[in-house]
Amino acid sequence: MKFLIATTNMGKIREFYTLMPEHEFEPLPIAYAPPAEDGKTFVENARIKARAAAGVLPVIAEDSGLCVAALGGAPGIFSARYGGYRTDRERNMYLLRQMVGKTNRAACFECAIVCVFPNGRELVSVARCNGSIVQVPRGDNGFGYDPLFEYNGSTTGEMTQGEKNLISHRGRAIRQLVRMLDRL
Amino acid sequence: MKFLIATTNMGKIREFYTLMPEHEFEPLPIAYAPPAEDGKTFVENARIKARAAAGVLPVIAEDSGLCVAALGGAPGIFSARYGGYRTDRERNMYLLRQMVGKTNRAACFECAIVCVFPNGRELVSVARCNGSIVQVPRGDNGFGYDPLFEYNGSTTGEMTQGEKNLISHRGRAIRQLVRMLDRL
Repeated sequence: MKFLIATTNMGKIREFYTLMPEHEFEPLPIAYAPPAEDGKTFVENARIKARAAAGVLPVIAEDSGLCVAALGGAPGIFSARYGGYRTDRERNMYLLRQMVGKTNRAACFECAIVCVFPNGRELVSVARCNGSIVQVPRGDNGFGYDPLFEYNGSTTGEMTQGEKNLISHRGRAIRQLVRMLDRL
Repeated sequence: MKFLIATTNMGKIREFYTLMPEHEFEPLPIAYAPPAEDGKTFVENARIKARAAAGVLPVIAEDSGLCVAALGGAPGIFSARYGGYRTDRERNMYLLRQMVGKTNRAACFECAIVCVFPNGRELVSVARCNGSIVQVPRGDNGFGYDPLFEYNGSTTGEMTQGEKNLISHRGRAIRQLVRMLDRL
């Protein structure tokens, strides 16, 4: 099992590593603020230190998807399981079948990032990239619906990672998050 | 800043690394159980994933100290700041001064380990090592009060790490914790 070990004492960490060789340890990150050890017993103090370390790293999570105007915003939050298919390729083919005969090809990629800090504070960054759905998939880069999504003449599957980051929903949301973090 | 990044999608992780080069990322440990993403929006789903990852590693914390019978159990939970001194050596000298004229040299090292799981469940392991306080410090190994604490003819400061682990308060508490984990 992997544990976070709530001490900065190298002598103690060495003893845990030696005596629990079948387990893994993650040391405390530098950002950890040690709590006041104001317990009345060793157990109380150990509990205070364990609880204080229990949410010590801020967490970033992301959710994103493709929203197609002619499909009423689908696949949207169901992008990863659209049509019940397992692979990107099957979902791409399924989406193109739904688009047969649709003249409105407008679509957008949307990305939401939530960053949760140990004190419960949240930062939320949402961004979009507007484009359209091609008739035939193009490009082997990226993942997901990238071969179907055209922006300024290229699909995101035809772009390099650098080109895609400049314009993509996730690139924009991440840069916006960085600005929020810089202002903290 | 260091973040836990709540995704297993390598394409997304790569984009975060590229676009946030001034930050560090910790991937999710294998033990992470992905939550049901049953939100109605991208933001809700991102929040569900961030909150689920916020306490994903079990944490181990330890508190320990030396309890001297003739000093009414002192320094006990104040072992690390006994007498207000900053260094192990100063605290050792201070303790020996308190012991001048005491015929009862009995002492014990005590160790409490608390392991907190993400679901809030706790394991607590407490162990002791009974010994006595020497007149003059001996041994350069270990740390803390090890040069003062005699067990079976040697101070823990004279023991190798292996010898100390066999008999020490922390060695015993860690082995007991391992047995508790094995029974889970």
